[in-house]
Amino acid sequence: MFMPMKDVLTAAVRLAGKVHTTPVVRSRQLDELTGARLFLKCENLQRIGAFKIRGATNAVLALDLESAGRGVLTHSSGNHGQALALAARERGIPCTVVMPRNSAAVKKAAVEGYGARVVESAPGSAAREALTAQLAAETGATVIHPYDHRDVIAGQGTAALELLAAHPEIEILIAPIGGGGLLAGSALAAEAVFNGANASSASTHPVLVYGAEPETADDAAQSLAAGRIVTRNDNATIADGLRTAAVGHLVFPILQRRVEAILTVSEAEIVRAMRFVWERLKLVIEPSSAVAVAAVLRHRELFQGRAVGVILTGGNVDLDRLPWL
Amino acid sequence: MFMPMKDVLTAAVRLAGKVHTTPVVRSRQLDELTGARLFLKCENLQRIGAFKIRGATNAVLALDLESAGRGVLTHSSGNHGQALALAARERGIPCTVVMPRNSAAVKKAAVEGYGARVVESAPGSAAREALTAQLAAETGATVIHPYDHRDVIAGQGTAALELLAAHPEIEILIAPIGGGGLLAGSALAAEAVFNGANASSASTHPVLVYGAEPETADDAAQSLAAGRIVTRNDNATIADGLRTAAVGHLVFPILQRRVEAILTVSEAEIVRAMRFVWERLKLVIEPSSAVAVAAVLRHRELFQGRAVGVILTGGNVDLDRLPWL
Repeated sequence: MFMPMKDVLTAAVRLAGKVHTTPVVRSRQLDELTGARLFLKCENLQRIGAFKIRGATNAVLALDLESAGRGVLTHSSGNHGQALALAARERGIPCTVVMPRNSAAVKKAAVEGYGARVVESAPGSAAREALTAQLAAETGATVIHPYDHRDVIAGQGTAALELLAAHPEIEILIAPIGGGGLLAGSALAAEAVFNGANASSASTHPVLVYGAEPETADDAAQSLAAGRIVTRNDNATIADGLRTAAVGHLVFPILQRRVEAILTVSEAEIVRAMRFVWERLKLVIEPSSAVAVAAVLRHRELFQGRAVGVILTGGNVDLDRLPWL
Repeated sequence: MFMPMKDVLTAAVRLAGKVHTTPVVRSRQLDELTGARLFLKCENLQRIGAFKIRGATNAVLALDLESAGRGVLTHSSGNHGQALALAARERGIPCTVVMPRNSAAVKKAAVEGYGARVVESAPGSAAREALTAQLAAETGATVIHPYDHRDVIAGQGTAALELLAAHPEIEILIAPIGGGGLLAGSALAAEAVFNGANASSASTHPVLVYGAEPETADDAAQSLAAGRIVTRNDNATIADGLRTAAVGHLVFPILQRRVEAILTVSEAEIVRAMRFVWERLKLVIEPSSAVAVAAVLRHRELFQGRAVGVILTGGNVDLDRLPWL
């Protein structure tokens, strides 16, 4: 019961004109440092400052009229909540986001700024999920999970699809993994391009796909090693987008089938890579994005001499609290 | 004795493949805030992190073989020194940069990192210029002035040329002004596009050109008002690229003929615009770049409802010392 790769192509058609086709940046300095040829897909320059708008918009647009009328619902304290709120507003349907009571006020304000309703839950994922299920039952709204949702995975994959279509010389793709929606979608995109599901952009070589994860939140790496989903509740990392305790059930088989390995990096390596990208590439990226860059630097033997696509996932950071200051 | 606009087209041909065709970024948030449609030309993503590589490379490539063999020489403590060093290295010719003894060590190291020789002068522009002239006489090297040089002006103009060619709907162009090489080059580019010197990209409407300058370093605005070059030795602003005491003699007549006005902004407005671009657009820009964005925000009556091209000039900042912290 695998997700078909064609979903990513359908998503790309749906998203045309709704999200930015983000630029791809190259850097001779980073190429010299890594020994590879890097193609950096700037999802930090995406709407809402992160790739999450792709999956959320795809999921909202995929709803039939009747379901859409009842609105959408999710639990998220991060970018997915904002993304879903914006996607719902653009389709003109209601959106509710369940957020823990202790979420930062600025995050609640951002979601409300896009016209969504915020409902506060007790802290902890159990309370949050129970409240989400209860609201879904009461309102008939469709729950759009942040990553373990077919249309979300497919939507996230469109970033890699754009990157591979623009630079068919890419041999390896790397993306960070939290819940796994982006990495699974990227793997499906790589498969779609190689198999020529879209004949005009069919590639002549398979694209290897790697994930990148903080050492201190390595549940995905552990899961691939164990052959089952490992939950790690002590995930602690500066890469706040990657603290998810476990990858999704829809996501996991895609990773098993299509991902070469999950590469891990230390917290110091994340901060160093983040600063390098700010300082030399002039791009504001969040720590989660830096995880993928750090992985290419640390595991250079895998990438040397190759054309490597890197997804810079987002740029939502608090400019008053930078990790090197 | 005006500089011909065709120089910019020649420069564009010369620079093809030598410098990045930088991306143009749009932002709905910034459009809402300004009431205009902004097209931001990301020269912060250019090689060496600033547009200066365009003028320096054009000047170096314009040298005949014999002159080139004697090398190039400039005085600059900023981006132009690095740009000339890199351009010279790529042509394989010697480069000397005169820098005041009290320049930051990191700036000297950057110039030397590109293989150029740094010669220290006593502080003050008189000492620096005297030493530069002496070295030129001794070595026969060609002096490449940071802005008051025909090939430098033409090279800087290629950023605007790319922007206007990619987005022919642009009606107004705005760029910051220090010595004026970029603004003069941009004005020539706007003229070239309108006059159809390059027939395939000829525009059907004239493009208005504005400069942007800090209030506390407004020698260019004063010069246009006075009808002669005004020198302001007390120029003090956070926008370190725009502290030049006076615009160039080659530059000034181009500004008089082609620039609508120089718009000024306060230091607080510069910092606010800079932070906005980092936070919302995820682009690391230096304060000089923010001056142009701040001018569109402050003088919104000039830009409302119009398609406006903005040159984001560079992104070279010290990440350990941010102006809002």
